[in-house]
Amino acid sequence: MIFASDNWAGAHPVIARRLYEEAAGFSVPYGASELDHEVEQKFNQLFEREVAVFFVGTGTAANSLALAAVNRPGGVSFCHREAHMIEDECGAPEFFTHGARLAPVDGENGKIDPGKLKAEINRFPPGFIHTGQPMAISITQATEIGTLYQPDEILAISEIAQHKQLPLHMDGARLANALVALNLTPAELTWKLGVDIVSFGATKNGCWCAEALVFMQPEMAKDLPFIRKRAAQLFSKTRFIACQFDAYLQDNLWLDLARHANLMGQRLQNGLLNTKHARLAWPAEANEVFCIIDKDRTDRLKQQGAVFYPWNPPHSKQELLGENEILLRLVTSFATEQNQVDQFIDMLG
Amino acid sequence: MIFASDNWAGAHPVIARRLYEEAAGFSVPYGASELDHEVEQKFNQLFEREVAVFFVGTGTAANSLALAAVNRPGGVSFCHREAHMIEDECGAPEFFTHGARLAPVDGENGKIDPGKLKAEINRFPPGFIHTGQPMAISITQATEIGTLYQPDEILAISEIAQHKQLPLHMDGARLANALVALNLTPAELTWKLGVDIVSFGATKNGCWCAEALVFMQPEMAKDLPFIRKRAAQLFSKTRFIACQFDAYLQDNLWLDLARHANLMGQRLQNGLLNTKHARLAWPAEANEVFCIIDKDRTDRLKQQGAVFYPWNPPHSKQELLGENEILLRLVTSFATEQNQVDQFIDMLG
Amino acid sequence: MIFASDNWAGAHPVIARRLYEEAAGFSVPYGASELDHEVEQKFNQLFEREVAVFFVGTGTAANSLALAAVNRPGGVSFCHREAHMIEDECGAPEFFTHGARLAPVDGENGKIDPGKLKAEINRFPPGFIHTGQPMAISITQATEIGTLYQPDEILAISEIAQHKQLPLHMDGARLANALVALNLTPAELTWKLGVDIVSFGATKNGCWCAEALVFMQPEMAKDLPFIRKRAAQLFSKTRFIACQFDAYLQDNLWLDLARHANLMGQRLQNGLLNTKHARLAWPAEANEVFCIIDKDRTDRLKQQGAVFYPWNPPHSKQELLGENEILLRLVTSFATEQNQVDQFIDMLG
Amino acid sequence: MIFASDNWAGAHPVIARRLYEEAAGFSVPYGASELDHEVEQKFNQLFEREVAVFFVGTGTAANSLALAAVNRPGGVSFCHREAHMIEDECGAPEFFTHGARLAPVDGENGKIDPGKLKAEINRFPPGFIHTGQPMAISITQATEIGTLYQPDEILAISEIAQHKQLPLHMDGARLANALVALNLTPAELTWKLGVDIVSFGATKNGCWCAEALVFMQPEMAKDLPFIRKRAAQLFSKTRFIACQFDAYLQDNLWLDLARHANLMGQRLQNGLLNTKHARLAWPAEANEVFCIIDKDRTDRLKQQGAVFYPWNPPHSKQELLGENEILLRLVTSFATEQNQVDQFIDMLG
Repeated sequence: MIFASDNWAGAHPVIARRLYEEAAGFSVPYGASELDHEVEQKFNQLFEREVAVFFVGTGTAANSLALAAVNRPGGVSFCHREAHMIEDECGAPEFFTHGARLAPVDGENGKIDPGKLKAEINRFPPGFIHTGQPMAISITQATEIGTLYQPDEILAISEIAQHKQLPLHMDGARLANALVALNLTPAELTWKLGVDIVSFGATKNGCWCAEALVFMQPEMAKDLPFIRKRAAQLFSKTRFIACQFDAYLQDNLWLDLARHANLMGQRLQNGLLNTKHARLAWPAEANEVFCIIDKDRTDRLKQQGAVFYPWNPPHSKQELLGENEILLRLVTSFATEQNQVDQFIDMLG
Repeated sequence: MIFASDNWAGAHPVIARRLYEEAAGFSVPYGASELDHEVEQKFNQLFEREVAVFFVGTGTAANSLALAAVNRPGGVSFCHREAHMIEDECGAPEFFTHGARLAPVDGENGKIDPGKLKAEINRFPPGFIHTGQPMAISITQATEIGTLYQPDEILAISEIAQHKQLPLHMDGARLANALVALNLTPAELTWKLGVDIVSFGATKNGCWCAEALVFMQPEMAKDLPFIRKRAAQLFSKTRFIACQFDAYLQDNLWLDLARHANLMGQRLQNGLLNTKHARLAWPAEANEVFCIIDKDRTDRLKQQGAVFYPWNPPHSKQELLGENEILLRLVTSFATEQNQVDQFIDMLG
Repeated sequence: MIFASDNWAGAHPVIARRLYEEAAGFSVPYGASELDHEVEQKFNQLFEREVAVFFVGTGTAANSLALAAVNRPGGVSFCHREAHMIEDECGAPEFFTHGARLAPVDGENGKIDPGKLKAEINRFPPGFIHTGQPMAISITQATEIGTLYQPDEILAISEIAQHKQLPLHMDGARLANALVALNLTPAELTWKLGVDIVSFGATKNGCWCAEALVFMQPEMAKDLPFIRKRAAQLFSKTRFIACQFDAYLQDNLWLDLARHANLMGQRLQNGLLNTKHARLAWPAEANEVFCIIDKDRTDRLKQQGAVFYPWNPPHSKQELLGENEILLRLVTSFATEQNQVDQFIDMLG
Repeated sequence: MIFASDNWAGAHPVIARRLYEEAAGFSVPYGASELDHEVEQKFNQLFEREVAVFFVGTGTAANSLALAAVNRPGGVSFCHREAHMIEDECGAPEFFTHGARLAPVDGENGKIDPGKLKAEINRFPPGFIHTGQPMAISITQATEIGTLYQPDEILAISEIAQHKQLPLHMDGARLANALVALNLTPAELTWKLGVDIVSFGATKNGCWCAEALVFMQPEMAKDLPFIRKRAAQLFSKTRFIACQFDAYLQDNLWLDLARHANLMGQRLQNGLLNTKHARLAWPAEANEVFCIIDKDRTDRLKQQGAVFYPWNPPHSKQELLGENEILLRLVTSFATEQNQVDQFIDMLG
């Protein structure tokens, strides 16, 4: 009963087999093989336009290099206060941008509030050197707390981005989960809403290590080959990343996997709604379910083999917890089995 | 007939199978799984002491983070003029050390000349701020041009390192090839000769992506967990790197693979010595053979399907080439088949 | 009637004359002259212990290099939400620390709240790589909003610093104003309260360009000579900074100048308290007076020649302003004349 | 008898007086005062075009920020092997460019050899990520060893720069000395020959601290205000730098001072040519004279009060010195008195 995170899962058998098959033979290294180019081509089809795509090894790398690509001296990027980028990457975005700053923006349900975003950006008037200069906006889809930006919510943010001439980045570590939940295509969820750069995560959803950095306007990425190499993110045997994406995108496997993860999340949520011994913290919209359980019961669940992490209540929900209560994050994945979910609910009683 | 580089090969079947088997099940991410710890333990045994070991994704990452671990403001590291670090990593070592400099040192046969090293270090007197301050020495074993440092040659360098209180790093992208060629143990080739940090490469020798950064004195690596995370080199599903090492080190597979690669290199060299149509540029000591062939013959070899790269003559061997001659690098690997070697020699005529 | 900032003033005649006299003759450059050493010696006397002192050109340099001296990978420094360092230095502290982060801490009256500081530091558990690691605490004395830390308030913070083994930095851009207001010696206000590093500002208080970075434990600054040189802050003709300090510290000139500035601040405050047309925003404790005036009157003051800046209300005082009201910052300096203050008050009516 | 360096001199009385007079009154800080703008205007006149000019505190800052302005990921700048930038700035150019590399180019007489420059640049083919990408070329005028690029020599380099689309930077720490020696105007020596960016030094030639970074195409400097602020090089009381330039440029004072320095250099050289006890190392073309004297005589000169530095023989002149001989650098400045020169020559005997 592993609900700790979707990166506790291994790799999906189809992807694992594809990796295995790729082992034989020789191929041009450093992203120049036929397979690399074929998979890049797949991304063009996926996004229904010519994109620039770069494979990297970790989500932190994708996010950091996205900002590095649009870096400005004294730059300030805007993200949600609880974004992974600002909370969990040990300063990597700042490091790869040589000290460009991340400015936290508040907002309900893990989503940037457009009004607050505007106000925060306005603290950096054009040309006013003391504060620094706006550089990018980053949103996370699905968010860190398992919610989803609706298309109009993204639009509200991208309008600000365009008005301020700032590139809009989407951290899509769980992009597939968002796509199936919203029933939108990659194009519909990204550039058609004004998103310029996507961290296209596949590791959490069935690969062992496959992240792609996708630029909707290839010219925005003109320095990325050098940035990636200098960042030690250009793998020699890149075809092993390419082949994971190849299998991942084939026959909509990736969407099926995400659909399963979301379904397990919904099943978990439904179970929680029907027990007296837990409260849902807020509605789960993708594959992360947050619930509130008392400390004793939490301990008992652990002893019975359930694995999960406690979660710090979001800034805007500090009042959520009663005494002796704990906020838990439960994450489902492509590998979560239905009986694990049911067993967990049973244990809750 | 791929002799372009050892990173054109895929992954060895045993390692590929181990990766495949690892796909199932759940495991603690970010290097905290049992498997991670077991493999770390294997490194202790391998090096016959307690070492600090960090898995990363690329050799460039290993080299760069090695220097980052011992970074100093205004720092200068010393490496051979033709070292991979200074020639082929797009400035990654400088980037990860925030601008610390690499000072090239000359030396015959791809190896740092101790006298020239001393002279170069002496250009940076202790406390003299204008020039910067010495920070580390890095040697490559096997070297970029397929030669080997003999133990006494490493000792001569490590004595300088100790005298100047500088850590000594070994870029071991082809460490296994060096070990079997010299018939030495990892301990004998590293810390027993004064080496402090090793980039322990496995990618070129049969893995798809497995590099380890090994510190002989764990306290030297006390900040490395943060350095690695901030460098976007901490993979979530690290067990997939760990399992590659697990299979790689099991039953001396890694040494067998390197032995094969070296054997193929020797066979290639012997073939070259027996043809009139090529000259050996210098003796091959591991799995890289450098030879001189005229341009027309080179073109013909390519047309017949041989794949290789031309190589810029080392600084000290500019006079090597006659008119219309080209220096070729031929690299063998665990995956090189004997008949490919023989066919290549046949084609040479 | 310049109340815009204390850096609108020029240089005090005594200091200007000293600079003029220093122009003749030859001297060893780069901080190695006799005068440099003599002035460094004066700092030892001033602080009643052997300190390491480094002259730099700007306050931003002093603050940034203070953090650079104690830099850690993934480092996070804690300062007040409205600190100059985080609000007005265009990301210089992050730049000079290669991306180390500044974490804002709230607190009333421009001062870090020790409880909130502790809570914020605790968000970075030792060894937890995802968030980064605590690196330093920085307080500003006098604060950005003209208030003062009382000795026991500093002590409360330095106890946290010591408990967490974090160096405590004091941004003393207006240190002299704080010293005379609190009637404390430099030693009493700094290391006797647990402060480790001081940005000792003199530019605002009568010099044209003289800032000193002072380390109470010289070993903490062992890399600073390289850090400063690499930061382009080692002036060739350093004696011109040294001579400013020489005159500044001579016969307590610096304290007299700060006393005058504070006195003018008090006179301004008293005047404001006696007018119906302005409200004091909060009590002024050094040489910065914040008051609230309505927009029309503000415009009229400007037309009559008064120069000042509006100020964004502190985070904790957003409710301060009524409709059509503006928060103004009025700064007095060594150069402020009494009749300017009186004239301003008169104009207020 | 100070011939150690031109930065041992203080400030010229006219400039010192101007600084003194500037001390009174109030003025807008951070480069926004009327005086700042007036002096910027003077630079437009000086260069006979609209330039973007930025005052900074040190020559190292000017050089480093010049490169920072044209920075590229994986960037490589080309300068002479003995350039100040690469030899004497403690890695500041690399630091301010986040690790961009300086590639040394050889050439006789302290000047880049165009053929070697071309060959070195060609080692970085466009788009080849492993080596990095060319970013800028920097020349020093007058050179580190007191020689001068003739106009056609600069043209040969700027043609390469234009062909490779690289900005050409001129380190003009001793620009005035070069201008008067060559009898050229600033425009003639810079942009008319294809120079894009100039580190316009005034400190060595009579100011205490006045360096200007001048961009011939202002759009190349669009980020410089942020780069400078973030680099802690934006002084609050910039008018004190501006006023130095004001006096420096007034009535051609700067050229007169340089002319004097050069004249003293010529007098020194003539004296050396007429003594048997010293050899000129190479002809002095500006205000630096290099000569060869035996060790005993050198010691005696020191004992008699002469101050100078020994100099490492340039890479291309290692054979210059006989046994027991020392290469000395003798620098004259605006402050060098004729009788000091004569006395030194007398002492030589």
